[in-house]
This record gives sequence, C-alpha cells and structure tokens, in this order.
Amino acid sequence: MSAFSFNKLVIFGVGLIGGSLARALRERNGAMGRVIGVGRRAHSVARALELGVIDASATLDDEAALAAALEGADLVLLAAPVAQTQALLERIAPHLEPQTIVTDAGSTKGDVIAAARAALGARIGQFVPGHPIAGRESSGVEAALPDLYVGRNVVLCPLEENAPEAVERIAAMWRATGAVIGQMPAAQHDRVFASVSHLPHVLSFALVDQILATPDAELKFSFAAGGFRDFTRIAASSPEMWRDVCLANRPALLAELDAYTEVLAKLRAAIDAGDGDALETVFARSRAAREAWQERGGKRAGGAAAGVAPAVGNDAADAAPGK
Amino acid sequence: MSAFSFNKLVIFGVGLIGGSLARALRERNGAMGRVIGVGRRAHSVARALELGVIDASATLDDEAALAAALEGADLVLLAAPVAQTQALLERIAPHLEPQTIVTDAGSTKGDVIAAARAALGARIGQFVPGHPIAGRESSGVEAALPDLYVGRNVVLCPLEENAPEAVERIAAMWRATGAVIGQMPAAQHDRVFASVSHLPHVLSFALVDQILATPDAELKFSFAAGGFRDFTRIAASSPEMWRDVCLANRPALLAELDAYTEVLAKLRAAIDAGDGDALETVFARSRAAREAWQERGGKRAGGAAAGVAPAVGNDAADAAPGK
Repeated sequence: MSAFSFNKLVIFGVGLIGGSLARALRERNGAMGRVIGVGRRAHSVARALELGVIDASATLDDEAALAAALEGADLVLLAAPVAQTQALLERIAPHLEPQTIVTDAGSTKGDVIAAARAALGARIGQFVPGHPIAGRESSGVEAALPDLYVGRNVVLCPLEENAPEAVERIAAMWRATGAVIGQMPAAQHDRVFASVSHLPHVLSFALVDQILATPDAELKFSFAAGGFRDFTRIAASSPEMWRDVCLANRPALLAELDAYTEVLAKLRAAIDAGDGDALETVFARSRAAREAWQERGGKRAGGAAAGVAPAVGNDAADAAPGK
Repeated sequence: MSAFSFNKLVIFGVGLIGGSLARALRERNGAMGRVIGVGRRAHSVARALELGVIDASATLDDEAALAAALEGADLVLLAAPVAQTQALLERIAPHLEPQTIVTDAGSTKGDVIAAARAALGARIGQFVPGHPIAGRESSGVEAALPDLYVGRNVVLCPLEENAPEAVERIAAMWRATGAVIGQMPAAQHDRVFASVSHLPHVLSFALVDQILATPDAELKFSFAAGGFRDFTRIAASSPEMWRDVCLANRPALLAELDAYTEVLAKLRAAIDAGDGDALETVFARSRAAREAWQERGGKRAGGAAAGVAPAVGNDAADAAPGK
C-alpha cells in the first residue's frame, strides 16, 4: 500500500492506543507528519516526548499551547478515557479548523457520539467515530508498539453528517497501521460489544462476588480449578474501566443482560424439572458454535455481511482503548 | 512413604481416571496387586489389557466373570459415568465380600451416595465416596498417566457408616498416587463444586446460546475476542457429561444459580440507576479476590479449615472422572 501521509496529528491521551498509532505511522508507514501529544498535565506527556513517540506536547492547562497544537492539524485522535470525550471536545472546539478531522478510540460509540454532538454542534461532520480493537495487558505509552494494530480490527461508525472523504481518511490512517477496517452503525457496534465483551465481564465479576458472599468462600476458592480460572480471568480487569463501560453502554448492556437472564431462567427450569434433553440440546448447540468459532480462529469465515470487513484480531476486544 | 499394598483392585470403567490409578499404583508405587478392569463390553476393556494397564478383564455381560473378578478383591473403584452408579453397585452387590472396600470417582456426591444406599442397603459402610480432582482434555485409557494425580486433590466424603479403617485405606490408596487427600461432608462437596465448576459451565454454555439466538450472531462472533474466548472455553465441554452433572447435583446447583441470579439482579439495578460507585465496589472486590486466588496459584494459603487438606492441583476440577 502507498504510504499514508499527513501534516499534523494531535493525540489526546498518549498511552498504549495513541502511542501505538504514532509509532505505527512513523515506524511502519514512514509518514513524515508531526505528532503532537496533549495531556491533562505536563508529566503525563513527558514520557511520550522522552521516548520520541511524539514530536511536541501541550497540556490542557495551557490554552495558548492547546491552540498552537491544533493549528493546522489535519487529524485529531481522542484516546483518553471515554468519559472525558465531551469535555475534551469542548476544549478543542474553539480551535477546530474546518479541514481537521477528529476521530476517537472509545470502546463504546453511542455515548461518545452523543458527547460529540453536544460539544461540536453543527460541526459534528468533522467527527468520525472509531474503535480500534486492540490492546495488551499492559498500558501506558511504554507499552506502545508500532505493530499493535497489525491484523487487528478497527470499527468505524460513520455518522450521516460525515463526508465520505472524511471517513476514508480515517480508514486510511488506520489501514496504514496494518489494521483491518470494518464499518457498522453505532447501535450495532454497541450491541455487538455489549454481547461479546461487556456482558461476559459483568458475569465474571458477578461469579467471584457471589462466591465471596458465601460462608465457605475460602473452601470454594481452594477447590476452584481450570474452568473457574478461565471463566474469571476477566474478573481481574480494571474496576474503574468496566464501571465506565457499563455506564457508557447502558442500554445495550441491559438488553443483553436481560436476554441472558432469560436463557438462564430457561436452563434453571430445565434443571429443576430434570429435563436432561433440554439441557443437552442447549449445551450441544452451544458447544458446536463455540468449536466452530475456535476452528476459524475466532474469525468470521469471510464475506462482508453488514458491510463489515472480516475480523482478524481476536484477542483484544476487551482491551481499553483510551485508558 | 511406604508402598501401598493391595491384593486385588477391580476398576469399573478403565478410562483416564481408572487407568491412571492402575498405572500410578504399579509404576509409581510398585504395588504388586492384581488389577482387573471391568467394562460393559469386551472391546471397552480390550485396549486397557493391550496396554498392560490391567492384568485381566471382565464384562458386565458375563455374570460368572464378574463374580470371579470380585472374588477376593480388597478394593473396587467405580470410574464409569455417575449415572451408572446404582446399576453397577446392584450388579456388584451379590458378589461383594465383607472385606472389600468400594470407592468411586464421581464429580457429585449426594446422588452417588443415594444410589449406593439404594444398591447396598445395610452394607453401605463398605462404600467410601470419593472424588479425585484430576483430568485432562483427553480421555480414555490411552490418556492414562502414572502421574496424573501427583499434587492433585482427592476429596473423600466419608459416611457415618464407614469404619475409620476403610476411609484410611482409600485415603492411603490415593496418597500412593501422589494425591493430596481432603475430607468434607458430601453436601459441602456438592455445594463447593456447584459453585466453582458446575455453575460456571452453565453460565458459559448460556452465553454462547444467547448469542446464537440473536439475528446478528455471526457478526457478534466475528468480533469476539480474548475475554469471550476465556469465558466460553468451558462451553466446548461434553454436553452429555454436563447434562448429567447438572441433574446429579441439582439441589446445590439450583441454590448457586439462584444466588448468582440475585447478584446479577443487583448489578443490573446498579447499571440501570447509573450507580457507578456500586458497580466499582463489586468489581474491585471481585478483582481483589480473583487476584489473591491467582497469586497463591489457585491454592489455599494453607491451614486445615473444615478438615480439608490444602488444595494443590488447580486445573482440573472440571474434568470428568469416569467419562
């Protein structure tokens, strides 16, 4: 592919996600544009500057530096926690030039879009919502890698107000990192990730918490084995992040949780009634689907249903872009 | 430790669990007793005989061979699926000599004890319920290993009717395989495993099944990543086995499922109310417990609360003894 070129990329929140984008564009793509990192305070971008991940930095404390950072920018990435989206965009808005395209890396989209509409008003067309499905156990700019996005999915959720060229420009930026680009409406995005990522986290936290509430918790933990270990691995995730995700994706998550509770109620009834056939039917169907998923390496078999590019990365939908 | 000696061990169901016991006693312990394998049909024990795991075989089809197998036996292990327990013990009962001690390898205990009482009546004292917490992904006698039980837990659930010597004899047999022996009442055993093994399996099957029921199932699977993979690994388990376990451990499993549903309902209410503090409290408490569990390698820190030996093995409570 030909190199992706840009003039000035401003990254708000230079951690794993933002730092890896900067490194990918320069080290993999050879792009020569300037990368400016913006943090809440000087020390939060100092390390990125030291490591050479960014060319210059600015802080939100300093209005003049913020204005200078955004001057002449063609691209802006929001890679701070999603809860900060509206406040960040309100700070950016006064300095937002007409040619600048803003995108984000939040793991929920409905709430981010609402925040962007509130902050940008009529200029919402300049905001192209995105979600790179990539992450590692570690976080922070030290963990940033030039190849973090290779083969990973980036989902874009274009708005009606977005010019096709703006969407394509953000897609091209991510493609230059080695990512595979998919598109879907924000509501579908939020439903998909509520189902395969957010709900499992809630269920896993809930199991550990339920055991803790029982008098023989210690005994139970002492006999917990491989199934428990796998099932609860995600219960070691960040409480703050998952609190935010649960609240940010509330409607979709509640819908999935309710549907799940219904499935559980049916299984409970089958167990209570001693209905082995019903249990075996569900378990067998579930196993077949899980095995089919595993066999294709967690990928879709191909095709482009719903206009989504084939998923490739399969081990990081749960990571916290922007954290 | 001094070698464990026996005269004749009869194993019903020579698969991974029974075969590994036979190999451990001979290859690790150097015991010289005879091991007889009994299967439903000749071909089911033929491979064990070929591999030298057993010295002789008998089939349930052949009453005389069954009688001969049990004649002079000091030990019997039931390692067939737990649903067969009562039928097997009814076949064994006419040939059960007073010195013979019978144990089992079932992953549930309340139902096994009820089956044993029904089949053995006044001779129930000869039956010492047990559960070796060991298994591998593979099954069958080909997968049997002499060191399968090294460092693994074997839980015994002695009955009031058991002579202490009978319990100690079974404990000594398992100890000779390298296992760590724990004891707890059957009801507690079933509660513990309902909580840390059976319930997670049901929850995992349920998640995959719920996704399958939605119109965008394929899209969801295509974006499922590491959290989903770990959470649903156990949904690839045997439908037949987990059907049986759910039914066998029905009362304990229903109690755990109800308690879990209550925790979920509370989390749902917190999400619905936007109560981030409540969510974060649960998630943080859960993470701390999960991390503490991980740090001690899935082991209890020690001590002997409830008379249970420290747990050592931590990756196979979900395996299917006897399958």
